Amino acid sequence: MASWRDNVRRVTPYTPGEQPHVAGMIKLNTNEDPYPPAPEVIKALQEVPAGDLRLYPDPAASDLVNAIAAYHGVSPDQVFVGVGSDDVLAVAFMTFFNSGKPIFFPDITYSFYPVWAELFRIPYETKALGEIFEIRPEDYAGGNGGVVFPNPNAPTSRLENLDTVENILQNNPESAVIVDEAYIDFAGNGKDSGVFSALSLLNKYENLLVVRTFSKSRSLAGMRIGYAIGSAEMIKAMSDDRYSFNSYTMNRTAIAAGTAAIGNEEYFRSCIAKVIATRERAKAEFTALGFTYPEPSGNFIFVSHPACPAKELFSALRSRHIYVRYFDVPRIDNCLRVTIGTDEQMEALFDFLKEYMA
Amino acid sequence: MASWRDNVRRVTPYTPGEQPHVAGMIKLNTNEDPYPPAPEVIKALQEVPAGDLRLYPDPAASDLVNAIAAYHGVSPDQVFVGVGSDDVLAVAFMTFFNSGKPIFFPDITYSFYPVWAELFRIPYETKALGEIFEIRPEDYAGGNGGVVFPNPNAPTSRLENLDTVENILQNNPESAVIVDEAYIDFAGNGKDSGVFSALSLLNKYENLLVVRTFSKSRSLAGMRIGYAIGSAEMIKAMSDDRYSFNSYTMNRTAIAAGTAAIGNEEYFRSCIAKVIATRERAKAEFTALGFTYPEPSGNFIFVSHPACPAKELFSALRSRHIYVRYFDVPRIDNCLRVTIGTDEQMEALFDFLKEYMA
Repeated sequence: MASWRDNVRRVTPYTPGEQPHVAGMIKLNTNEDPYPPAPEVIKALQEVPAGDLRLYPDPAASDLVNAIAAYHGVSPDQVFVGVGSDDVLAVAFMTFFNSGKPIFFPDITYSFYPVWAELFRIPYETKALGEIFEIRPEDYAGGNGGVVFPNPNAPTSRLENLDTVENILQNNPESAVIVDEAYIDFAGNGKDSGVFSALSLLNKYENLLVVRTFSKSRSLAGMRIGYAIGSAEMIKAMSDDRYSFNSYTMNRTAIAAGTAAIGNEEYFRSCIAKVIATRERAKAEFTALGFTYPEPSGNFIFVSHPACPAKELFSALRSRHIYVRYFDVPRIDNCLRVTIGTDEQMEALFDFLKEYMA
Repeated sequence: MASWRDNVRRVTPYTPGEQPHVAGMIKLNTNEDPYPPAPEVIKALQEVPAGDLRLYPDPAASDLVNAIAAYHGVSPDQVFVGVGSDDVLAVAFMTFFNSGKPIFFPDITYSFYPVWAELFRIPYETKALGEIFEIRPEDYAGGNGGVVFPNPNAPTSRLENLDTVENILQNNPESAVIVDEAYIDFAGNGKDSGVFSALSLLNKYENLLVVRTFSKSRSLAGMRIGYAIGSAEMIKAMSDDRYSFNSYTMNRTAIAAGTAAIGNEEYFRSCIAKVIATRERAKAEFTALGFTYPEPSGNFIFVSHPACPAKELFSALRSRHIYVRYFDVPRIDNCLRVTIGTDEQMEALFDFLKEYMA
C-alpha cells in the first residue's frame, strides 16, 4: 500500500557546530564573537513595549532595513533581511537557482551549500580550490546555473581580492552570483575591510548578491539576523519568495536589536580591532608551535601541524573543554578551525598546546 | 541572450493583512489578541543575559519544545517549533506534499495555502465548502497528495466536530493530513476547547499533524512562535528539512518568551475567557443590527448584512480608522472578518455601525 512516507522530502541535514554547555568551557568552535553586543542592543531589548508583543511585527522590518541601507549607502529596496544569513542564503538559493544547470561552488567551503542544493533539488558541481586554498576564477566561467562562494572563505579564512570576484562576475552575466561575506568585517586590518567587499561592484553587476550577517562581527548570533544587498530587482524576487514562505519572519526583538546594533559604529569598530589584535598574536603563537595556516581574514584561523594529527588534537582539546571545529573530509582532515576568542581564552588554548606538544 | 532572470522562481506572494500605524486606530483586521502577553514573558525578555546574545541559540530550542510537550502531555520528539505557524506550515508543505498528486483544501480558507502550493510547485484542488460553510469530509476521501484545513476554519470561524476530522483521517491513510488549529483555544467556551482538538487523535493516526500558534491565544504575534505536534516520525522528517534550510531559526528571545508564556496557565485562561465573553456580546450586537454569521469559534466573527454591502462598509470603517478584513473573492465578497478586540474597541465599532446604518 502507498504511504504518506513515500511523499516525504528526504534530506541529509546540515550539521551545525556543537553547542556544548559545560561550566568553564572555552568555546572556539562556531565563530562567535567573544565580546557582547553594544549596550544599545540590551537597552533596545529591554524597551520593547510589552503591549506591542501581541501585535504582528512590521513584515518589511523597515526600521532594520532602513538602518542597514543607510549604513551601506544603498537604497532600502536593495536590502533583504532574514533570520541569520543562513535563512537569507536559503531564500537566495530557492529564488535564483532554478535553471536546471548545475550551480558552482568551491570544494572546500561552507558545508551548508550542498545541503541547500539537495533540499531544493538544485544540481551542483564543486570546483577544487588551488594549492593554497585559492579560488581559481577560470573554473567558474559560465556554463552554470549560478555561483556562490564565501569571501573570506570558510573554513580556510582566506580572502580573495576583488579582481578575482569581479572576474567571476564578468564571466557569468547569465546567472546569479552570490558572494557570502559573513566574515568580511575582519578582513585586512578591519578598518580597511570595505575595500575588499563586493559591495563596490553592485552598480556594475545587477546579478550580484552580497550576503552579510550580524552573527559574527555584530555579536548577535543569538538573535538571528542576516541580510543581503543586491539590485532592487533581485531583492524584489527574494522578497516575493520570502513573503510566500512566511510573511513575518523578523520578530519585534530582532528588529529592535539589529537596528540598535547598527547605531553604534564606535563599539563595533573597537570589538573588531580587539579580535584582529588577538588574531595577530594567535598567528605568532601558532607559528612558534610549528603550525601552518592560510593568512586568516576572518575571526578564525585554519591551522595544520605536520607532526600532530588534527583529529587527535581535536579530541585532546575537547577532553579539556576547549572546543574547536574539525571537519573529517578530504584535503582538510588534518586541519582545525579555531575561532578567535578573548586574549584569556587564547592564552588557555596555547598553554594547553604547549603542554600537549612538549 | 540568456539571463539570470530566466532562472528566478516567480510567485504571487501572500498578502498579509494591513499593518496601519494611525494614532487612536482600532485594529480588528489581523486576529491579534487584544490583551498583552503574561507578565512572565516581559520579565523573561528583560532577563535574557546580554552576554549570551553573542552565542548561537540552542538549534533544537529545547526549553520551548520541552515546555510545549509537557503542556500537551506528549513527548518532546513529537514537537516541532518554528517562526510562527506560517513557518511551521511552510516546512510541513515542503516536507510532506511531494507526491505529484494534488493536495486538497477548502475553497474558502486560509489564503496562504495556495501560495505555499505555488511556491513549492505542489498541485492542488480546492473543495467547495457547503451552504453553511461546512467542510464536507466525503470531498477529501483519498486520491490526493495530502490534505490541509484549519479548524476552526478562517475566515469563517466555523468549527468542525471531531467526527468530521476523524472521517478525513480514516479516508486518507496514504497521505499527510494537517489540521491547522491556530484558533482552537477559542472554540466552545474556551475551557472545553481541548475536546475539539485533533490532538486526541494523535495516537491513532501517525500521518496527522496538528499545527498551533502563539500569535493568537498567547498574545505573541510580535515574537513569531508556532509549533506542530505529530508522530515522532513526522516531526523528524520536518526537522531534517528545517535543519537543511536554517539550523538556528528560533532566536534566544523567542525561546525565552515562548517558554515563559506556557508557564502561566491562569493568565492564559483569563485572557481567553475575556475574548469569548466579548465575542458573545458582539454576536448579540451584530444580530441586533441585522448581520448574520456562522457561529464563531475563533477570536473573530465573519459577518454579512443583507442590505449593507461589505465592501462599502469596509471602506467606511477604514475612513474612521477602524480596520477589519475584507476579501474580494467569490462567495465571501459580502462578508467582513472582524477580530474580537477589547470591550471598548467593540463598543466604538458598534457605535459607528449604529450611526452608519441608521
